[in-house]
Amino acid sequence: MPKQINLKKRPTGTPTYDNFEVLEVPIGEPSKGEILIKTVYISVDPYLRGRMNEGKSYIPPFQLNEVISSGVIGQVVESRSDLFKKGDMVLGSLGWQEYSVASEKSVRKLDPNLAPVSAYLSVLGMTGLTAYFGLLDIGKPKEGETVVVSGAAGAVGSTVGQIAKLKGCRVVGIAGSEDKINYLKNELGFDEAINYRTQDVGTALQEACPNGIDVYFENVGGKVADAVFPLLNHFARIPVCGAISSYNNEIEDVGPRVQSYLIKTSSLMQGFTVGNYSSRFGEGIKALAGWLNEGKLKYEETITEGFDHTIDAFLDLFKGANLGKSLVKIAEIEK
Amino acid sequence: MPKQINLKKRPTGTPTYDNFEVLEVPIGEPSKGEILIKTVYISVDPYLRGRMNEGKSYIPPFQLNEVISSGVIGQVVESRSDLFKKGDMVLGSLGWQEYSVASEKSVRKLDPNLAPVSAYLSVLGMTGLTAYFGLLDIGKPKEGETVVVSGAAGAVGSTVGQIAKLKGCRVVGIAGSEDKINYLKNELGFDEAINYRTQDVGTALQEACPNGIDVYFENVGGKVADAVFPLLNHFARIPVCGAISSYNNEIEDVGPRVQSYLIKTSSLMQGFTVGNYSSRFGEGIKALAGWLNEGKLKYEETITEGFDHTIDAFLDLFKGANLGKSLVKIAEIEK
Repeated sequence: MPKQINLKKRPTGTPTYDNFEVLEVPIGEPSKGEILIKTVYISVDPYLRGRMNEGKSYIPPFQLNEVISSGVIGQVVESRSDLFKKGDMVLGSLGWQEYSVASEKSVRKLDPNLAPVSAYLSVLGMTGLTAYFGLLDIGKPKEGETVVVSGAAGAVGSTVGQIAKLKGCRVVGIAGSEDKINYLKNELGFDEAINYRTQDVGTALQEACPNGIDVYFENVGGKVADAVFPLLNHFARIPVCGAISSYNNEIEDVGPRVQSYLIKTSSLMQGFTVGNYSSRFGEGIKALAGWLNEGKLKYEETITEGFDHTIDAFLDLFKGANLGKSLVKIAEIEK
Repeated sequence: MPKQINLKKRPTGTPTYDNFEVLEVPIGEPSKGEILIKTVYISVDPYLRGRMNEGKSYIPPFQLNEVISSGVIGQVVESRSDLFKKGDMVLGSLGWQEYSVASEKSVRKLDPNLAPVSAYLSVLGMTGLTAYFGLLDIGKPKEGETVVVSGAAGAVGSTVGQIAKLKGCRVVGIAGSEDKINYLKNELGFDEAINYRTQDVGTALQEACPNGIDVYFENVGGKVADAVFPLLNHFARIPVCGAISSYNNEIEDVGPRVQSYLIKTSSLMQGFTVGNYSSRFGEGIKALAGWLNEGKLKYEETITEGFDHTIDAFLDLFKGANLGKSLVKIAEIEK
């Protein structure tokens, strides 16, 4: 029987296999207006860790003993909807399971001729749009400014850095391995890249940013972020997208308070989630697809093969193992 | 001979008398285009503490063995300028001294018939304008929203709260004495006021803000601010004006990092100084003067008498002794 992954126990600290339960469940039957979808790719993302906690946030928490969900690309295997036919590729927020029954309203059709379908989970999907709106709408980079991005080799960070280069900025990435550093400098054209595991981030940033920092795209928080604040220029902008360094903290995440830095420099910090921009997704996808087709935007995928490794792929996110977007490939697309 | 106060030694921690030196200096002689001014009021403000440190900020630090300066109102006693005549009341950034010689371009004339001249150092001056632009331009309060202001009985905070009331908001002030609490609730019409010295701020805020916090006007930082973040509503705005609780810190000011709170609620923090709005001062003064003349805006002054008590008045700011604007009265206005 096909499998499904439920949240069994809320994690305290770093999630482990004990937090999940793999069940066998029968394939559902679509009712009128519904489709049966075979899962092809599952997106695993750091923000899902937040949904495993109780308590209010910008999206409701996962329920115990219910299936975990995230961005999923699948193929229609049975349709009782006039909008979809067998073989169509679809994208939606669906369960971590091999088959899903979904309302025709909850998914959208993808054109596999425009880009490889997996791109709709990364550079043309939530992570690309997160980078696009966070950087351009909040960060507002201007030609010649210095943009620093943490989590720079991740799906969001790598797109942020490339868009900032397209806007004529000096771009400095912070990441956690030499492979990532090389990737950022040699593949993506970042001006500088800093390895936070082996370098003193404050000193390295000072050297890499001789004109100070105008935009800091925040993906990680913690000590990496602490090192950025003393180097902010007047009227700097900080889109606050993520704080992965703190997601598994069991104790309070404590560091230097930021108020004095913000006052001294009249700087702005703005938290956001991509959903704030849903009315403008069309604009973002069009711009990203344009750069992609012109060869100006590269993206990397870390693809884990097989449903049975979905939990591994998720846990790997917190080890910093992934380059670019992390996906799990569940099945081949049927022609 | 008239006196002058110089910065003798940069403070570490809370300033003391040892940091200052009182000198006797001869009265200067104005050259062409200059005026001789007799000091009437000296403004003492928390932000001056920052200027006593070395290092870059939004305004240059005071120099050792040079006169300290701040907002000053004075009366022209001798003029070699066509723009001013003897007896005129003027406002400028002038030294802590009984007499100043100033260029005609560095001061502006005040109309003592529009409002008591001291108001130009408070509600119609920098502190009123700080409240006006920080609250309205960054805080953007909407009718029915909840606005929390710390340092609420100070010159900036008391104006912020009253403007927020004029905009139809629920206003909660945080201050440090029962006198201040009573003043905020009974004189200024705040909906609630919290004494951070005797109450648990987190619990008190939860009770005072049943619908969460939409705008937090930051004057103090530290633990008071820490208690605000968990109560922010979606798309909350935080104008960051001051952080007086940390100005005298000798060790790093450490507390819960704010990134996760900002992400969860898509909230904004924006540091600012009033100088960012200098091109719009006219608009601000007009609005403030209008409310003042309609009796909709009250202001309080804590006036210390006598040049010899200038340092006392400054040091008192960090004891939370002042209500509203702190001024030192140096001389009577001559008719």
